Amino acid sequence: MKFNGRNIFISSTATIGHNVKIGDNSVIYDNVTIGDNSIICNDTVIGEPLNAYYHDPSYQNPPTSIGPDSIVRSHSIIYAGCTIDAHFSSGHRVTIRENSVIGSHCSIGTLSDLEGDVRIGNYCRLHSNVHISQTSSIGNFVWMYPFSVMTNDPYPPSNDIQGPSVGDYTQVCVHAVILAGVRVGQNCLIGANTVVNRKLNDFSLATGEPMKVVDIRKYIVMGKGKLYPWMKRFERGMPWQGLGYDKWCKEHKAGD
Amino acid sequence: MKFNGRNIFISSTATIGHNVKIGDNSVIYDNVTIGDNSIICNDTVIGEPLNAYYHDPSYQNPPTSIGPDSIVRSHSIIYAGCTIDAHFSSGHRVTIRENSVIGSHCSIGTLSDLEGDVRIGNYCRLHSNVHISQTSSIGNFVWMYPFSVMTNDPYPPSNDIQGPSVGDYTQVCVHAVILAGVRVGQNCLIGANTVVNRKLNDFSLATGEPMKVVDIRKYIVMGKGKLYPWMKRFERGMPWQGLGYDKWCKEHKAGD
Amino acid sequence: MKFNGRNIFISSTATIGHNVKIGDNSVIYDNVTIGDNSIICNDTVIGEPLNAYYHDPSYQNPPTSIGPDSIVRSHSIIYAGCTIDAHFSSGHRVTIRENSVIGSHCSIGTLSDLEGDVRIGNYCRLHSNVHISQTSSIGNFVWMYPFSVMTNDPYPPSNDIQGPSVGDYTQVCVHAVILAGVRVGQNCLIGANTVVNRKLNDFSLATGEPMKVVDIRKYIVMGKGKLYPWMKRFERGMPWQGLGYDKWCKEHKAGD
Repeated sequence: MKFNGRNIFISSTATIGHNVKIGDNSVIYDNVTIGDNSIICNDTVIGEPLNAYYHDPSYQNPPTSIGPDSIVRSHSIIYAGCTIDAHFSSGHRVTIRENSVIGSHCSIGTLSDLEGDVRIGNYCRLHSNVHISQTSSIGNFVWMYPFSVMTNDPYPPSNDIQGPSVGDYTQVCVHAVILAGVRVGQNCLIGANTVVNRKLNDFSLATGEPMKVVDIRKYIVMGKGKLYPWMKRFERGMPWQGLGYDKWCKEHKAGD
Repeated sequence: MKFNGRNIFISSTATIGHNVKIGDNSVIYDNVTIGDNSIICNDTVIGEPLNAYYHDPSYQNPPTSIGPDSIVRSHSIIYAGCTIDAHFSSGHRVTIRENSVIGSHCSIGTLSDLEGDVRIGNYCRLHSNVHISQTSSIGNFVWMYPFSVMTNDPYPPSNDIQGPSVGDYTQVCVHAVILAGVRVGQNCLIGANTVVNRKLNDFSLATGEPMKVVDIRKYIVMGKGKLYPWMKRFERGMPWQGLGYDKWCKEHKAGD
Repeated sequence: MKFNGRNIFISSTATIGHNVKIGDNSVIYDNVTIGDNSIICNDTVIGEPLNAYYHDPSYQNPPTSIGPDSIVRSHSIIYAGCTIDAHFSSGHRVTIRENSVIGSHCSIGTLSDLEGDVRIGNYCRLHSNVHISQTSSIGNFVWMYPFSVMTNDPYPPSNDIQGPSVGDYTQVCVHAVILAGVRVGQNCLIGANTVVNRKLNDFSLATGEPMKVVDIRKYIVMGKGKLYPWMKRFERGMPWQGLGYDKWCKEHKAGD
């Protein structure tokens, strides 16, 4: 059904791997590399030129790479200068602006918007409609849910850009806001609609508005017991799938 | 102006009704049925293949149907396996994922995102930017406003998916969140930014953070009197338009 | 790379200025005027017909104009009947519905959605994912941040549409909600996630939920002093850039 070769534009300077499929109406601009076995669905733009393109006659598109075994779903736009590792997956209409670096096995959901110069580790999952401001930093195994936001301006409007950071294994629930410059530790859970306005230590459960913080290791759900850290009870898509987190930790270092 | 027949792809297994218009750059995939007098605007995708398509050489696209007298606005994506009844209307860039069932006379606004396996009754109106998680259920005559969310994971990340439900006539205001598994009754009003973390009985007015609940039948607006239930004071687009809700109730059962 | 003239449709009644670039797969409908030196990127729609087009055989597309030196980024949709002044800039997938009037030097970010009949002054900046309901009004030098919303229905659903307004120089932070009919003064700062449910005087700092209001001129940030009003400390892209706000005020009236 798909992949009929209709209305596709591929730059002569792009490098397309083996067994790559490119959907109808898609565009691959200069200096893009697509890894083997990847699927670029219809109506996507890979290597979108930066603003300088429109004004600078000597503009050269910076290199853009998407690793092997990736899928970019339709209507997504990935700017030039991005480096995305293997086993990447995007939803529809994702925007990833320039110079973002994304690790392996990440997925970014429909309508999510990464504003550029973002760093994301491995095995992260951003659901639909997540907004990440420039210079934000996200560790490994981080999940963010719809309409969560990382902001970067401490007193808008200013030029004092301070991207916040989120540590490994942390979960950021729907509509949560992480304010500019805030450091969120590892293994935190940030509740729905909570505005995180100060540093969170590892293992923080932060909920409510204004934010209240407790140690998540003391958090017990009736009939379920201790649910966090979550890695021993959830394996789907994680590198410890079929092996168990403890065994995997012994065999690997986090982030491998 | 529109409907010039440019760059359109229609599968030979699609069934297109009488007097259907299909916009430029649109795609109708296998086993799609479009009802009579419907308008499929430009740059839309109807019957988007499921993930298995990319990996399973024997993949067959499940049937997708859009009822008569519908309009799907541009850049929307409706996945295969969806069943949408007559008089449907979508905004731009709507995403409706697989196996969703939507009743008659519904409208889904620009950028709204239904994650699949969603059930929606008749005469519902989702405004722009509404996010509905998998297995959520929505009754009849329900309105949801921008950036409202229904979530489905009670302790993320988990495999314990529990789609919440919203009863007939309920209004869900901007930025409201309905947490996983929560049952919201009929004739409720959920305020802006409220996180609904427990069951709401019929006729609940739920506002604030943390949520406070009162009986909406006791809620009086100065100079306006009792505004809820709303059906006696609002008729536009409703089946009781020109007839009145009381008279309509006598003649029909709700949901007819 | 771009602007190859592929799959473009331009109405014979459109007026395209000098040195205008139009991207591949874009559509310019009837009675659109594009000012000199503007860039219309790929996959955009300018002059999208109103709903009457689908039903009225005598439909005429109302005039649409985009001023000179503007850039409309890809996948954006601007409806017929809009008037947008010079030096306009849009992100990707922006929707601007009919009869909206936007001043000069404005930018509207990726995925933002203006619902029609909106008034916006000069030098405003809406970031990504801002939602503006019908009949809302925004002054000059106003900035709005992701997922902020202006609503217009005081007791939904109703026909009592009351677009709210925001005064000059006001900043509306992420996830803030301005409810129907509310008047927000000049030089206010509305915090993240705050629901503005009543009139705000000039120089209000409104934060928290429920909203608390103080005079922003008394607000001191440790080590930074008084940061608001912001115009003396921030110049980028503003008409007082290189001149200073005080000197500019003496030479011009606000809004010139």
